[in-house]
Amino acid sequence: MMLRELLARMIEVGRLSVAIRSEPSFTIGAVPIDMPQLDVAIRLKDRWAANLLALDPEYQLGQCYMAGSLVIERGTLDSLMELIGRNLKRRPGAGILGRARELTAALRARTNSLGRSRRNVAHHYDLSEAFYRLFLDEDLQYSCAYFTDPGMSLEAAQAAKKAHIAAKLDLQPGAHILDIGCGWGGLALMLARSADVYVTGITLSTEQLRVARDRASAAGVSDRVRFALADYRQVAGRFDRIVSVGMFEHVGAKHYRDYFGAIDRLLTDDGVALVHSIGRKDRGPGFDRWTQEHIFPGGYIPAVSEALAALEETGLWLTDLEVLRLHYAETLRHWRLRAAANRPAIEAIYDARFYRMWEFYLASCEMGFRFNGLMVFQAQIARDVASLPITRTYITEAEQGLHGARPRPQPKRAHARRKATAPETEAAQC
Amino acid sequence: MMLRELLARMIEVGRLSVAIRSEPSFTIGAVPIDMPQLDVAIRLKDRWAANLLALDPEYQLGQCYMAGSLVIERGTLDSLMELIGRNLKRRPGAGILGRARELTAALRARTNSLGRSRRNVAHHYDLSEAFYRLFLDEDLQYSCAYFTDPGMSLEAAQAAKKAHIAAKLDLQPGAHILDIGCGWGGLALMLARSADVYVTGITLSTEQLRVARDRASAAGVSDRVRFALADYRQVAGRFDRIVSVGMFEHVGAKHYRDYFGAIDRLLTDDGVALVHSIGRKDRGPGFDRWTQEHIFPGGYIPAVSEALAALEETGLWLTDLEVLRLHYAETLRHWRLRAAANRPAIEAIYDARFYRMWEFYLASCEMGFRFNGLMVFQAQIARDVASLPITRTYITEAEQGLHGARPRPQPKRAHARRKATAPETEAAQC
Repeated sequence: MMLRELLARMIEVGRLSVAIRSEPSFTIGAVPIDMPQLDVAIRLKDRWAANLLALDPEYQLGQCYMAGSLVIERGTLDSLMELIGRNLKRRPGAGILGRARELTAALRARTNSLGRSRRNVAHHYDLSEAFYRLFLDEDLQYSCAYFTDPGMSLEAAQAAKKAHIAAKLDLQPGAHILDIGCGWGGLALMLARSADVYVTGITLSTEQLRVARDRASAAGVSDRVRFALADYRQVAGRFDRIVSVGMFEHVGAKHYRDYFGAIDRLLTDDGVALVHSIGRKDRGPGFDRWTQEHIFPGGYIPAVSEALAALEETGLWLTDLEVLRLHYAETLRHWRLRAAANRPAIEAIYDARFYRMWEFYLASCEMGFRFNGLMVFQAQIARDVASLPITRTYITEAEQGLHGARPRPQPKRAHARRKATAPETEAAQC
Repeated sequence: MMLRELLARMIEVGRLSVAIRSEPSFTIGAVPIDMPQLDVAIRLKDRWAANLLALDPEYQLGQCYMAGSLVIERGTLDSLMELIGRNLKRRPGAGILGRARELTAALRARTNSLGRSRRNVAHHYDLSEAFYRLFLDEDLQYSCAYFTDPGMSLEAAQAAKKAHIAAKLDLQPGAHILDIGCGWGGLALMLARSADVYVTGITLSTEQLRVARDRASAAGVSDRVRFALADYRQVAGRFDRIVSVGMFEHVGAKHYRDYFGAIDRLLTDDGVALVHSIGRKDRGPGFDRWTQEHIFPGGYIPAVSEALAALEETGLWLTDLEVLRLHYAETLRHWRLRAAANRPAIEAIYDARFYRMWEFYLASCEMGFRFNGLMVFQAQIARDVASLPITRTYITEAEQGLHGARPRPQPKRAHARRKATAPETEAAQC
C-alpha cells in the first residue's frame, strides 16, 4: 500500500499508527523515551483518502483533516505536526518537501494586481472581527509577538512586540508615520499613544478599516490617527517613518521591487522604515499549496537574500536586520490554544469544517517555525547613512522607556528636520 | 580639453582648481558656505597625466597621486576625496562609477586557488609588522573599530569592537573557537583572556603567524591559543564557535559557497559563528581596479544579499545581522592621521611612493564609507534554531560585562554540551 510505503520511508523518529475505515491499524516507528508525545494514531475515512494522502501528502493532509476524513485517535493535531516536523527536519528536501519545492516557481511568478490583491486580502482579513477576537489578544495583533520572557502572556508579548518596533522607528516628535497593512489599527494607536506623532494606516480590508476607525474614534485620536482603504502602490506624500508588519508576506516575489520602490518614494530624506515579515532560512516553498488555497492566496515567503536583493536596487540602506526565531511558534501556540478553548463559539460563527481548517493552519505554521526553517525578520531601512545613531543602544533604551511606566524624554537632534507635508491619501480613499 | 569637460560635468558642489605643469590653472565650481573644506587645487605634472586622468579617472587618480604626478596645492587629499565623494553621491552610477561597474563582472569571476590566495595575502599582510605599528592601534587590529562614543580613542574603539564580537559569540566555558583570518592574533588573545576557552587562529601570512605566536607565548597562553598557517579550506575538526573578522572581503564572490560550506562543515551542532566583513548597500564594484592592483588583489565587496544567498545554501541559520555604518570611516580617519604623523618613519621603511600609495588607499576607502555605500556587516550564524537566546539582550549584557572591570559569571546552560574534539590543524601546518 502506497501510504504505508511512504510513511515507512519517512518516519525515523516517533510512532504513527494508521487505520483505514474500520480495518485494523498498521504502525510505523517507535516512541522515543525523551519525546513521549511523538505517539499518534490516525483513522482515515476510506482507501480513497489514503491514496490521496500518499500521492500528495503536503496538500492532502490539510484537505483530509479539514474534511473530517482524517481523525486523530491517539495524540493531538499538535503531536501529529511535531512528528511530521521532526522527520522532515531529518531529511530536508526529501519526500513531502521535495514535492512542495516544485510548486515554488509557479507561486513566485504569481502577479498580484490591485484587484487581485484586494480579493486576496478580503479572503482572509474580511472574516468577522468577532471571530478574530476568539483567538487573538485583546489588541487584535495578528502577527508574531515578542517573548522577552518565556512565560509571558500573549497580551504582554504583543505589547513587547509593539514597543520593540516603536523603538526601532526612533520616533521624533511631530513625525508622520505610514503603517502599510495596519490591520485593526492596534500598532498605529499604540504609536500615537507613545509619542507625539501622526499616523496614517492603510489596509485593503473593509472590515479592518471599519474596526480601526471605530477604535481611533473611541480613543479620541482621530485627528492624529487616520485610516484608509489603500494599496501601498496608491499612496502619495512623504513620511518620516514607515512601518509594515506582517504585510510583506502578501506582496508576492514579483512585486518586491514595487514594494521597496514605494518605500523609497514615500520616505523623507532622513526617514526610517521597519519591515517585519515572515522569512525562511533558505529558499524554499514558503506557503505550501494548501495554505495558498485556503489561507493566504497570493502570498510568498522569501529567504532574506530575496528581500534584500530587491531593497538593494533602491539605493536605500539596510541599517539593521533582526531574525526572530521561535517567537512565532510560541505566538501560534497561544492562538491555537485560545481557538480550541473557543471552539463552540467559532463553530457557531462558521462551522466545524472551518474550525478544523483554521486549527490545521495554526498547527502547521507552528511546525514550520519550530522545525522547518521559518522565522520572522525585521529589516530596518533608512535613506541616509547618518539618519540613525551608529550603535543599536538607542533601541534597547527606547524599548525600556516604552515598556516601563516612566516616560522617556524625546532626544534632541542636532540636524534640523524638514516639516513633513501632510500625507495625501485622498486618492486612495476609495 | 577632456579633463576640464569631465570635471565640468561632474562637479556640482565644491571648487576644484587644476593646473598642468607651470600653466595657469582653470577652476570649476564654487565653495559652499557650509562646507569650506570643499576647496581644492591640484597640479598635474604634464598633459599626459591630465589625459590619463580624463580617460580613466577612477584608476588614474590613485596612479597619478602615487607617482607624484598629481600634487595637492590647496586643501588636502582628504578634502579632495570628500569633494569627489560628495559629487559621486549626487549622481550615483554616472561618470567614474559607471565605468567602474563595468569591471565588476571580471572581478567577480576571479578564482582564488590556494596558491593564489597565499600570494594575495602575502602581497598585503606580509608587509612588516613595524610598518603596521606606525598606523594601527597597539593591539594591531586591522579591521573596523566600534565607536560606542564619538570621541573615543582608536584603542578604546578597537577594544569595544572585540567586546562586541565576543558578546555575539555567546561564549561558554571550555568552548573551542576557530578564528579564520586571525591577523596578528589580537582577537584570539582577547577571547582567551575574557573566558575559559581554546582558540585556534589561522592566517595565510607568515609574518602575522610569527607575531601572533610570539604574542601568545609572551602572554603565557600558548596552551590555549594556537596559531597555524592555513587556508579556511584546509582546516579539519569541529569548533563550538567560529569567528572571522575582515577576511570575507578576500574570499572572492566565486568562493562564497566554499566559505560558508567550510563554516557549515566545521561548526558543532550547537555552534555559533560571527562573520564581520565590509559590504555594500547595493551591488557595485566593491574594490575598484586601483585598489585591486595595489592593495587587495583577489578581493570582492558583496552586497549583503550576495553573501546571504551563499549562506542560505548551507542550511545554517542567519541569527542576526548588524550593519555598522560610518564606524570604518572613523577608523580609517584615525589610521590616516597616525600614518601622517609617522610619515618619515614609513618612508624610511619603504619610500615616498609607498607612503603616497598607502595614504591614497586609506583616504579613498574612507570616502567609500562616508559617501559611497560601503559599510561593515556582522552576520551571526548558527546551526540550530534554539542554540542562542531568543532576544538580543544577551549581547548587550555580555558586552557590558566585558567592557567593565567586573568579571561576568558564565551563564549556565540547560542543554548538555558535547565535548568538542581537539582541533586538527596538523594538516594545515605547512
